[in-house]
Amino acid sequence: MPSPQRRSTPVFAVKSAMKFVAKITTLATLATFGLGASLGPTAVAAAAAKPTDAKLAPAPWTREDLAAAKALRDRLVKGSEAFALVRDLTTEVGPRSAGSAGDAAAVVWAKARLEALGFDRVYTQEVTVPHWDRGELEVRTEAPFPQRLVAASLGGSIGTAQEGVHGEVVRFESLEALKAAPEVAVAGKIVFLDQSMRRDREGKGYGPVVRGRADGASLAGAKGASAIVIRSVGTDATARFAHTGGVIYAINAPRIPAVALANPDADQLARQYATATARQEPVRLFLRSTARELPMAKSANVIGEITGSEFPDEVVVLGGHLDSWDLGHGAIDDGAGVAITTAAAIGIKQAGLKPRRTIRVVLWANEEFGLSGANEYARREKANLGKHIGAVEADFGGARVFRFSSRVAPAAVPAMQQVQSVLAPLGIEWGNNEAGGGADTGPLRREGVPVFNLQQDGTLYFDNHHTVNDTLDKVDPAAVDQATAAYAVLVWLLAQGNLVLR
Amino acid sequence: MPSPQRRSTPVFAVKSAMKFVAKITTLATLATFGLGASLGPTAVAAAAAKPTDAKLAPAPWTREDLAAAKALRDRLVKGSEAFALVRDLTTEVGPRSAGSAGDAAAVVWAKARLEALGFDRVYTQEVTVPHWDRGELEVRTEAPFPQRLVAASLGGSIGTAQEGVHGEVVRFESLEALKAAPEVAVAGKIVFLDQSMRRDREGKGYGPVVRGRADGASLAGAKGASAIVIRSVGTDATARFAHTGGVIYAINAPRIPAVALANPDADQLARQYATATARQEPVRLFLRSTARELPMAKSANVIGEITGSEFPDEVVVLGGHLDSWDLGHGAIDDGAGVAITTAAAIGIKQAGLKPRRTIRVVLWANEEFGLSGANEYARREKANLGKHIGAVEADFGGARVFRFSSRVAPAAVPAMQQVQSVLAPLGIEWGNNEAGGGADTGPLRREGVPVFNLQQDGTLYFDNHHTVNDTLDKVDPAAVDQATAAYAVLVWLLAQGNLVLR
Repeated sequence: MPSPQRRSTPVFAVKSAMKFVAKITTLATLATFGLGASLGPTAVAAAAAKPTDAKLAPAPWTREDLAAAKALRDRLVKGSEAFALVRDLTTEVGPRSAGSAGDAAAVVWAKARLEALGFDRVYTQEVTVPHWDRGELEVRTEAPFPQRLVAASLGGSIGTAQEGVHGEVVRFESLEALKAAPEVAVAGKIVFLDQSMRRDREGKGYGPVVRGRADGASLAGAKGASAIVIRSVGTDATARFAHTGGVIYAINAPRIPAVALANPDADQLARQYATATARQEPVRLFLRSTARELPMAKSANVIGEITGSEFPDEVVVLGGHLDSWDLGHGAIDDGAGVAITTAAAIGIKQAGLKPRRTIRVVLWANEEFGLSGANEYARREKANLGKHIGAVEADFGGARVFRFSSRVAPAAVPAMQQVQSVLAPLGIEWGNNEAGGGADTGPLRREGVPVFNLQQDGTLYFDNHHTVNDTLDKVDPAAVDQATAAYAVLVWLLAQGNLVLR
Repeated sequence: MPSPQRRSTPVFAVKSAMKFVAKITTLATLATFGLGASLGPTAVAAAAAKPTDAKLAPAPWTREDLAAAKALRDRLVKGSEAFALVRDLTTEVGPRSAGSAGDAAAVVWAKARLEALGFDRVYTQEVTVPHWDRGELEVRTEAPFPQRLVAASLGGSIGTAQEGVHGEVVRFESLEALKAAPEVAVAGKIVFLDQSMRRDREGKGYGPVVRGRADGASLAGAKGASAIVIRSVGTDATARFAHTGGVIYAINAPRIPAVALANPDADQLARQYATATARQEPVRLFLRSTARELPMAKSANVIGEITGSEFPDEVVVLGGHLDSWDLGHGAIDDGAGVAITTAAAIGIKQAGLKPRRTIRVVLWANEEFGLSGANEYARREKANLGKHIGAVEADFGGARVFRFSSRVAPAAVPAMQQVQSVLAPLGIEWGNNEAGGGADTGPLRREGVPVFNLQQDGTLYFDNHHTVNDTLDKVDPAAVDQATAAYAVLVWLLAQGNLVLR
């Protein structure tokens, strides 16, 4: 999962367009986290109140299709390809940030694996991606008490001068407080943005603090700060893992180095700040970073299809993003999503089912650092998006799905609730018709493609999100089988149904 | 807490003596972990079966002393100096491995703090300590799948040649399997010792695996291995923290570099090993380390006393070790022990009590890397050890005490059970009369000084033991107050009682 907003840097050709994209993506992502309440609950309430409407429409599925969905569910929840996929991706490739050698290896790995699994058609779409290297980073307090701090450069951050940056620290407890501060309080100093993230099953703690990660650098830079350090956007209050994630440099502000401190190190800095402030002494920090931007690189969307038997040009899209941040192995972000969606699609074929419409797995390139693959896919498919039945992304870790939501025409909501009734034995409740979809389905959604969310339990997700600790052991094999079963049911029913979703 | 055996390297003058010390320390430490069953339970059973014996001896305490003990307990459990002490030690000093700048800073800090707290007498004892620097370390797999691994050099390990070590991996699941392996299977290879540690409240999982950390390098070196990597001795199966701790180079084996892998990285290596073995291909590792031994350095035991009002030359010793490993802040190992014992002693004075005998807090130098301070203290006090009433160390983290054990003459066991009855409202049960004491009280115990254990809950202790993640947030303020109350009760009753403990 990415930052909620994309960077607007010179690497993107059309800045104003990117800013628009960024804004929309924010909404989509926040909606993923269940924050998309601005659309209002009325449509959902109306739909829920009139379940008998379903009887007026022709039945969307045959008895056979529904029976197959249930059998598929019961088969995949007992065991699927999912865990083996995420195991092998993290073992055989590991870190794979956009443009890196790992990214290239992941494309080769994924294409070979989709072929080996028996997809009817496997191909790639070349994508141009930014390439950033975090280099080396050193952060330490110099006063009042010298200590090394565990930190990570935020994605896209510039480095420091070779001799590093020394500066007095000024601490803010919120982005609003930083916004409100006079320039004189910030100029020449190192800003410490000390906001904590709240743990929540739906990840609702992310939205309120991630703005600080994305926008803090430019806000501080505009007031003359020499660098910014933020408390990591993560719920692991007692683990010395720094959380990376994208920084967004505004066009009209000086760029300054931006780093995240592990939570215990932010605690350390806050304690030193309290002691020093009480003594009316300064806290001084030293930062040295060799982070830098490299020339744009090539990557690819990797695509596998099960060809539709009746309407091969009508497609149901599901997928995850193939790239990861560079620190960890990308097991929960997003090896698990790659695995769940790939296993769901091939699970349908392995069950001997022949979908009427084409089921297309898209493993998007570079989600984390600019949605390059998602935008490229939407651009290439622009003429065909009317034949995209729907799109769904898995990008929220390796835990169980607990809720199903859709974003379809109100008249189709009862059919979606019928999908949920097939999912119910997996412990999946009906959510609403305000699904935000995933970050990578954002460009499709903006073109009118119906999107869905099979919401996974995110209670532990932000403990390891964007850290070195995003490793295979965070993925529960039984949970990814459950999620695989859910995706397979949804995709199968979308591929089979007589539905008018928009 | 240290390795169960001390290193026998040239830094110690008398190697054979050290080996003897090492062996005894092992027994003491294993006993701390409840493994000292070799002494047999008979004495305890006999003592427990004859509680009426207590009636035959003169009452060890006055009603006033017992009432004061209870009041002290109830006062300190509600709040003590303990958390502030460990907070400030970790904030103002942080890492403090033997011979480092942090070690020197810790001595200065501790002396000033004991003085500020109002101990009657504060002084230091100079101690010569080894000084090892871990330098930089890089570990990665080269085949079948290139990945960087999170690792830490074991304490005392030699470095590699500047160009590093490349080698094929041979994996063993136990030290016994490594011992049994023929030379031809090991020579020229990098040994991977892949033993997992079991979680246990008493830390009983430590003993079975720590031998691998201590002795694996020399066993592998003797068979011609070029290096050894071990799975970390730690219970955090899902955290990428490597656990350091001492390696013991045998005199008659070649020294080879020894490193620990974080558990998820050991999992990664094991998966690669399984894949490669199935394909009959090698796993290849690369290690590069600049670890090195520096000249011996000076440190000090820091001592604070509350002078006895009636028998000032009779002393009750309590303490923790002031040094820590270099990776973390030494909050659980052993800032918490320093804090608990210091707070217990000063808590007695702050309660307005005047002990009959002297209460002496000893903050030992360099426990982790050779017990230098403990040996120096015992050497200097040799003539006075007959007047040491007893000695107790806190060195098992920042959790609650759940059990009290002693090692005293059998006739004194009923009195010890009476101590436990005062501790019972804190949730502390009676253990047995086979207390091993702490590592730093080992030299005293071997000279006949009675020792005790106020056993703390170690369920989580080995998650962060000897890692970068040993930070203040692992210390529970209420738990260290409970432990402080327990130490204060024990020490007060030892200082007041008419006891014949040996």
